[in-house]
Amino acid sequence: MNQPTLASLAAELKVSRQTVSNVLNFPDRVRPETRARVLAAIERSGYRPSAAARALRNQRSMALGLRLGQHRNGISGTIVDGFTRALVTRADQRGYRIVLFPASTNGEEVDKLVELRRSLAIDACILTDTWYGDTRPAELAAEEVPFASFGRPWDGHDHGKWADVDGRFGAVEAASYLRGLGHERIGFIGWDDGSPVGKDRRAGWAESLRLSNGEAEALTVEGEDTILAGAEAMAELLERGADAAVCASDSLSLGAFTEARRHNRHGVNLVGFDDTPVARTLGLPSISQPVDEVAKIVLDMVLAQLADPAVSLSGTLVQPNLVTHESPDFLAH
Amino acid sequence: MNQPTLASLAAELKVSRQTVSNVLNFPDRVRPETRARVLAAIERSGYRPSAAARALRNQRSMALGLRLGQHRNGISGTIVDGFTRALVTRADQRGYRIVLFPASTNGEEVDKLVELRRSLAIDACILTDTWYGDTRPAELAAEEVPFASFGRPWDGHDHGKWADVDGRFGAVEAASYLRGLGHERIGFIGWDDGSPVGKDRRAGWAESLRLSNGEAEALTVEGEDTILAGAEAMAELLERGADAAVCASDSLSLGAFTEARRHNRHGVNLVGFDDTPVARTLGLPSISQPVDEVAKIVLDMVLAQLADPAVSLSGTLVQPNLVTHESPDFLAH
Repeated sequence: MNQPTLASLAAELKVSRQTVSNVLNFPDRVRPETRARVLAAIERSGYRPSAAARALRNQRSMALGLRLGQHRNGISGTIVDGFTRALVTRADQRGYRIVLFPASTNGEEVDKLVELRRSLAIDACILTDTWYGDTRPAELAAEEVPFASFGRPWDGHDHGKWADVDGRFGAVEAASYLRGLGHERIGFIGWDDGSPVGKDRRAGWAESLRLSNGEAEALTVEGEDTILAGAEAMAELLERGADAAVCASDSLSLGAFTEARRHNRHGVNLVGFDDTPVARTLGLPSISQPVDEVAKIVLDMVLAQLADPAVSLSGTLVQPNLVTHESPDFLAH
Repeated sequence: MNQPTLASLAAELKVSRQTVSNVLNFPDRVRPETRARVLAAIERSGYRPSAAARALRNQRSMALGLRLGQHRNGISGTIVDGFTRALVTRADQRGYRIVLFPASTNGEEVDKLVELRRSLAIDACILTDTWYGDTRPAELAAEEVPFASFGRPWDGHDHGKWADVDGRFGAVEAASYLRGLGHERIGFIGWDDGSPVGKDRRAGWAESLRLSNGEAEALTVEGEDTILAGAEAMAELLERGADAAVCASDSLSLGAFTEARRHNRHGVNLVGFDDTPVARTLGLPSISQPVDEVAKIVLDMVLAQLADPAVSLSGTLVQPNLVTHESPDFLAH
């Protein structure tokens, strides 16, 4: 690329490479006349100290690591892509790039992040998809890799370096909306994988409806996060006398919707999560997650740590909001 | 992080920093006994040469730049995210990371790529969204930034460093499928932005149906890439006597679908592009783009250039395929 280097500048000016380097890094060590001569030559040449050289000197890469999020299915996956897009855009405004990589386990993710940090390819990282017994925060702290996470620590030590969407609040909103439509027997369609996010949403639903444990039990059906599972759950809930449901995802809500229509139960109302394109297209209400706001907060959190490793941070819950859509003509009955 | 450095290893071993460096880079220059002693110490210490140091030495960062793709809307955007996901996964298998950044113009994209390459933050880059008069390939070549593109050069010099989906072939398939269903008056719903991809798809449609210019003109309606524009185009095509349509995108196909149902024209068949979740949910046939195959090819192309800057490459067209889905129960009439 023939760009000027410290060495070529030094040769041109007949000074040592160290002198050129000192002008840039320790100008006090260089005589004023020499300094002026070198700076003029640097300016003329268009020389830019390389990021690699700067990284070695400053231990800064101006990049943040992010694992490629789990893409459960084409419907719910939009929330993952939406967060990544928001983070890339927000980081760019602060001069940072996002380094994306895949990992099949949390262990592989931590190994890659530690390696990226050690090799100065990233300055810090962003975690997502937190879970019970998540050891990543402690492992990264032990390796002194600064991080912030989209997702709270669900148990154990609260490190404070997180922002999360208040799914419980979202489910309260969803249940209130359905009750406002006149429904009295509102079920919950959730995940059977023990997901902390799913439990949190279910808790909000039960709380909003002031359900006893027994009632909540009777109105809950859980399964995989698929359209089919949503349909099966709705069939079950209809048998149990429910006429509406809060669903842990738009995939489940879509399945429930298809099943209700199959039974000509057009009065059944549903609310899903994530306000996906599919939900918008079918006019299904959904709880929209403010991923841009979460991206902004976690970015602020890692940059605050880079500025001051001892900074004290506390976790932030962001409120989601219910989004309704007009039902499209093609579903008219 | 207290990780060992060349300097700390040298101090511990009472040898010069240069000796430790030579053991790693030019072992022949070091006496065998010293070499053995240094290597043993390196192994004990867990020392890993930093990527920044390696980058300075080898001018390699093991990272590739990618602009965050334009996310036209929540429906068609999945193709952009799908390609990014495929590229991140494929690159990881070859030891490369993807550095994501946004840019609002092609000029800003080139500036950022040149800066990233100059600063050794990336070794090469991947372009997407090629267009007529696209100056990025020539600009990157002049700056000696290796690249390959998802998208052919639509005019001017064929640099050969590209893979693209054969949209014309996809449209031929779509039109043949509709003819096979018995349709005789098959329209085309496209974009009015002069997009080369759109023109290519329209050409395939016209070719497959052996339409004269006049017939093709009469059966084409173009507008924005939105559901609303698709609906308006379908209304127009119905007036012109069409009973089916090839659509340049699933957004358009969805709009056309809603409009046909509004008129109770349940016999109207449509084919869109990109096999998006919305199309799958509604059972709308679509032309699926093999983004994983494209990602593999463009990755091979940039790595081939890194191995041999003079390598000769030629562009590759990948064939898409028509995907049909069962129509869901909830649309039964």
